[in-house]
Amino acid sequence: MIEAGHLYGIGVGPGDPELITLKALRLLQNAPVVAYPVSFGKSLARSIVANYLPENQIEIPMPFPFKIDESAQPFYDKAAEELAKHLSAGQDVVVLCEGDPFFYGTFMYLFTRLSEQFVTEVVPGVSSVMASASALGVPLTYRNDAFMVLSAILPAQELSQKLAVADAAVIIKLGKHFTKVYEVLKQLGLAERAKFIERATMHNQRIVPLSEVAPDTVPYFSLIMIPSQWESE
Amino acid sequence: MIEAGHLYGIGVGPGDPELITLKALRLLQNAPVVAYPVSFGKSLARSIVANYLPENQIEIPMPFPFKIDESAQPFYDKAAEELAKHLSAGQDVVVLCEGDPFFYGTFMYLFTRLSEQFVTEVVPGVSSVMASASALGVPLTYRNDAFMVLSAILPAQELSQKLAVADAAVIIKLGKHFTKVYEVLKQLGLAERAKFIERATMHNQRIVPLSEVAPDTVPYFSLIMIPSQWESE
Repeated sequence: MIEAGHLYGIGVGPGDPELITLKALRLLQNAPVVAYPVSFGKSLARSIVANYLPENQIEIPMPFPFKIDESAQPFYDKAAEELAKHLSAGQDVVVLCEGDPFFYGTFMYLFTRLSEQFVTEVVPGVSSVMASASALGVPLTYRNDAFMVLSAILPAQELSQKLAVADAAVIIKLGKHFTKVYEVLKQLGLAERAKFIERATMHNQRIVPLSEVAPDTVPYFSLIMIPSQWESE
Repeated sequence: MIEAGHLYGIGVGPGDPELITLKALRLLQNAPVVAYPVSFGKSLARSIVANYLPENQIEIPMPFPFKIDESAQPFYDKAAEELAKHLSAGQDVVVLCEGDPFFYGTFMYLFTRLSEQFVTEVVPGVSSVMASASALGVPLTYRNDAFMVLSAILPAQELSQKLAVADAAVIIKLGKHFTKVYEVLKQLGLAERAKFIERATMHNQRIVPLSEVAPDTVPYFSLIMIPSQWESE
């Protein structure tokens, strides 16, 4: 009987290929099979590690719908089925994950479907949340700050209520929700402190003042950071 | 005139030496000077990268008080002064930071003191927050979850109020505050869902059920994770 392969969900970091960990790189380069999510025909995760991929590795693009809703189920089912074939045949499979696999990712949907049947290991990665603070050159949290990550998709009132209890926050997945979020920040008196960044650490990273952002052109991979207002000693 | 050296604050990750990024490792190995925080005579950050340090690198241990309060100022002043000497002499200086430099770190205190005078770059790292979720094998946040990081030092009532608006949370810096936090979680009905981990990804990592934790032995580097209750599809 063939021993089943291992499943690895590896964080490849926020965009800069050099922000992958040694462990993720080692597993990636030793696996016979690599799988990655694809949206609108492109895979950001694959593009990050493109220069590290060994020859003759089997690639499994996994088309996932961009919006995560009920209809995504069949896509995850299908991808899990395909990975299971390779794992059952004794091949290790590495799944590429932008940022960190368990932090607002899609890997958990494969994890849920496969981790009971196959030995599974998750390798954490650098999140775009931390990478944005570094890229902006602004410390994010001090000492005993209460820190919050919010999705821009939430209604304005909910964003307000939650931001009210945080000392520092990051609002992710901006896209078409930019104007709503900006209004909330102005009402809370946070607009001055807030910083905007698109595609942190990627080759096309862009930092502009909040007041100069064109709301129609804000990509999904952009965020607003509200750094702690603690004064550094 | 000598061109001044560059200052790099590099995240070395949560503990496993393999969870350093390629970029942090490159900068570390090319710098003539490396500095690191020391508490109680030990440097966790240095121990993580001990096997990567090149020969003949100048080492600057920076003794910082364990508790970050007003009295820490002179320690940061003194460390900044020493780093400035090397930078002014044209030597690049790498400062080691556990986890991520701008996320509950001490690097910001050096950043504030030196970044106006010297070219400074911050390299993000894998946070123990994400590393804990991977080590526990439990997805942390899904979709549009509101996620919160709280310090266990906060009073019980404040912890309660803030946890009430979060879908998922991590409570860091447990130490002697374990019992207080556990009581709060029980009152909120979150104790069943919560997971405990000590020293995630370090060689002495320890995972035990919350109900089996001995409150007197909980280290500072331990946390409680309250994962999202979203069902995976």
